[in-house]
Amino acid sequence: MTISLPRPDDWHVHLRQGDALASYARTHSAAFGRILAMPNTTPPLVSPEDVLQYGKSAEKAAPGLEVLTAFRLMPRCSEDDVRALAAAGVPAGKYYPDGATTNSAGGLADWRQIDGALAAMEETGLVLCLHGEDPSAPVLDREEVFLPVFREIRQAFPRLKMILEHVSSSAGVRTVSESDGPTAATVTVQHLLFTLDDLLGGLLNPHLFCKPVVKFDEDRRAIQDRVLAGDSRFFFGSDSAPHLRESKESDCCPAGAYTAPMALPALVTWFEKKDALDLVEPFFCEFGRKFYNVPGNAGRIELERKPWTVPAVSQGCVPLMAGEILPWRLVE
Amino acid sequence: MTISLPRPDDWHVHLRQGDALASYARTHSAAFGRILAMPNTTPPLVSPEDVLQYGKSAEKAAPGLEVLTAFRLMPRCSEDDVRALAAAGVPAGKYYPDGATTNSAGGLADWRQIDGALAAMEETGLVLCLHGEDPSAPVLDREEVFLPVFREIRQAFPRLKMILEHVSSSAGVRTVSESDGPTAATVTVQHLLFTLDDLLGGLLNPHLFCKPVVKFDEDRRAIQDRVLAGDSRFFFGSDSAPHLRESKESDCCPAGAYTAPMALPALVTWFEKKDALDLVEPFFCEFGRKFYNVPGNAGRIELERKPWTVPAVSQGCVPLMAGEILPWRLVE
Repeated sequence: MTISLPRPDDWHVHLRQGDALASYARTHSAAFGRILAMPNTTPPLVSPEDVLQYGKSAEKAAPGLEVLTAFRLMPRCSEDDVRALAAAGVPAGKYYPDGATTNSAGGLADWRQIDGALAAMEETGLVLCLHGEDPSAPVLDREEVFLPVFREIRQAFPRLKMILEHVSSSAGVRTVSESDGPTAATVTVQHLLFTLDDLLGGLLNPHLFCKPVVKFDEDRRAIQDRVLAGDSRFFFGSDSAPHLRESKESDCCPAGAYTAPMALPALVTWFEKKDALDLVEPFFCEFGRKFYNVPGNAGRIELERKPWTVPAVSQGCVPLMAGEILPWRLVE
Repeated sequence: MTISLPRPDDWHVHLRQGDALASYARTHSAAFGRILAMPNTTPPLVSPEDVLQYGKSAEKAAPGLEVLTAFRLMPRCSEDDVRALAAAGVPAGKYYPDGATTNSAGGLADWRQIDGALAAMEETGLVLCLHGEDPSAPVLDREEVFLPVFREIRQAFPRLKMILEHVSSSAGVRTVSESDGPTAATVTVQHLLFTLDDLLGGLLNPHLFCKPVVKFDEDRRAIQDRVLAGDSRFFFGSDSAPHLRESKESDCCPAGAYTAPMALPALVTWFEKKDALDLVEPFFCEFGRKFYNVPGNAGRIELERKPWTVPAVSQGCVPLMAGEILPWRLVE
């Protein structure tokens, strides 16, 4: 049995920088046709030149992969900055609350710091991608505590395209579902499949540690319900976040799950279990691109129903579910 | 400034087995006069001979340290077994629900499996130490879900001495506080000082990962309230659980915080901050021994108010708060 798909999109990817960027991009190109790369590099990607250059260097390393790149919304981002980014073809801007996750220091304390930039994003059709957590709240409440900010922005800019990235809570699902205007959420492998019990119910698995942290069964169920309803506001964005094995397996493990090498086989397995293989294509290939208003990808990929072991290590990083056997694999 | 104390007790300690036992026992002997060692070895300590032999080998390695040892309550433990243990001078039995923590497989599924043994413990004055978690519940609810079992046993054996080990939740504190009969809780460094935010709110710290996991601020506050009230039912038991660094900093980190090397300076620091240095001696030296009905320890220790850095590694293990500077140190 095989499944053939247009080359899918991954609307939330960390490619890092330096030498590693090329190999992470190549890992993505095995399964995906287009990705949206995140700008939380050091220094962050803010100018049109840096944003475009970053995407180009990733594309050069991974022929066949289209790399869109978000710019990072910093506290001083102006309307003119946004207009220049839009004119250069940058599709999205990423909002990090200060200190919310890896390389988010110096981020935003209040959305009113950038109300002009947000107005310009609305006007030019740029997508606002939000890391929707308030880092001052207790760790499991951070998404929920951030949601009033999400709704304030939603109300202030009714035509702004807004994405609650890596939605992790039933409250987050509800806010996206009940929002008017162009609102969506990206869904990761880990928040769709796992809970806090998988992270620390038995042995602690640092490779499942990410921000937002995986939560309770009711949160997972809320995300699953929207995906299984074929709700076009909920589409794939892996938040695949490579950190080297020695960094994750240490006394101070950074947040991030590396899912690029296994996301497609793992989620096809899950869709099959839910008797919903017909949703694979819209979830990976349609809902997101329609929200971003871009055409489908050229070329196709194929998955076959043949056992496959998630690699123990890929590009120096330990993928989520490393060593587990999945019934589906990507045909090379 | 110095503090002088009778050599304290630690009523919940893991010494492991093999070569490591001697060095872990010596680490304890630097600060403590008496400990209660836990029997979750492989195989578990169940017979009077094995229990006593285990304690003796630890004492031999650490002269000056009195090592009491609990036996492990296994599903087939009989009244006669308990009588033999009591006659041999074993002071306590440890109840592990099946699968609750490190080396707890084959533990108890239901307290009625050992109702005869519990009756004999009540009659002979042995202390029942409970790992009070139901491993089938979500990880943060496990203590609370276990509490009805605790209360059932409490009701069935009104004179049985019962300890809710490493109390971690406000619900656990409440159950102990409201119980009639000889009921107590041991309090660890980690559950008294830390919450889930310290474990995974920033970078993930595997050395703070233990079972029960540290919980919310309200839970920590409930434990602190009882300790600061000088409630004699809440006394020190570190649950110090050494695991080698390479095991903790891995893709499958076992539960356990290693606190033996830093518990006293860290908690004296906390008592001082709470303007409650007068509670140090009862918490460490009196409440527990009175519950266990044993005399005070010979000899004294001294702490001085002089900055001290928690060692990065001790006996191959990373202590909790490794590298942090505490204002108090033990005088060698």
